[in-house]
Amino acid sequence: MSGWLDQVKWNTDGLVPAIAQDADSGEVLMLAWMNREALAATAAEGVAVYWSRSRNRLWRKGETSGHVQKVRELRLDCDGDTVLLKVEQAGGVACHTGRRSCFYRRLEDGGWVTAAPVIKAPEDIYGR
Amino acid sequence: MSGWLDQVKWNTDGLVPAIAQDADSGEVLMLAWMNREALAATAAEGVAVYWSRSRNRLWRKGETSGHVQKVRELRLDCDGDTVLLKVEQAGGVACHTGRRSCFYRRLEDGGWVTAAPVIKAPEDIYGR
Repeated sequence: MSGWLDQVKWNTDGLVPAIAQDADSGEVLMLAWMNREALAATAAEGVAVYWSRSRNRLWRKGETSGHVQKVRELRLDCDGDTVLLKVEQAGGVACHTGRRSCFYRRLEDGGWVTAAPVIKAPEDIYGR
Repeated sequence: MSGWLDQVKWNTDGLVPAIAQDADSGEVLMLAWMNREALAATAAEGVAVYWSRSRNRLWRKGETSGHVQKVRELRLDCDGDTVLLKVEQAGGVACHTGRRSCFYRRLEDGGWVTAAPVIKAPEDIYGR
C-alpha cells in the first residue's frame, strides 16, 4: 500500500521539495519540504504536512496560524523528485508575513520589490 | 547591480529550486535548479536558464527541444531560498515526456496515475 511512496526519489537528506498551489486560482503559494513521513501523513490526513528543516520535526501547516491547507490533489513530477499539492488555503494566507503567497517579491530594474499586500498582520496571526 | 543576487539564499551546493509556471494558465510546469550564474543569465537574457545537476553545466531550457521558456516575471519567496518564474512556454510543452507539465502523475487510491496526455512524442522533440 506504500509502493507509491517508494516511487518518490528522496534526496540524500530523505526530502523532496513540495510546491503548494491554490487549487482554484492557480497561484503558487509556497515551497516547503517533505520527508516520507510527511508525505504519507499528507495523503492520509488530507492536509499539508511538511518537514520543518529548521525545527527538525513534522510541521502541520497551520498548527499555529490556523492557515491549514486542505489538499485537493497530490501530483508527482516526471523524475519523481518533486511533489505538487493543489490546496484550499484556509484564511487565504499561506505566508508567515500575512500575504497570500510567499512569492511576493518581484524582480524590477535589478531589485526585488514587494508586489503583494499584507492581508493579515503577523501579530494577528501568531499573537504579540 | 548584482545586489539582488546576494539576497538569494543559495543552499550548500550554491543552488536554489526554481519553479516554472505558465504565465497565462497558471499551470505549474516544472521545478529545476539554478545557481547564481543561471539566475543572472535568466534575468539578463529573459529566458529560463537552469543548472543541470546531472550534466553539471548551465542548461538553457529548450536548447535541444526548442521548448524555450520566455520569462515574463521573476519572483523570490519570503525566505529568499526559492525562485518562481512566470513563463511563456514555447510549443506548449515543458516536459521531456512531451507533456505540458512535468507534474502529470496524480495520486489516486494509493497509486500514481498518469493524468495528462502526451502532446508531442519525445522522438519528435529530440529526434530518433
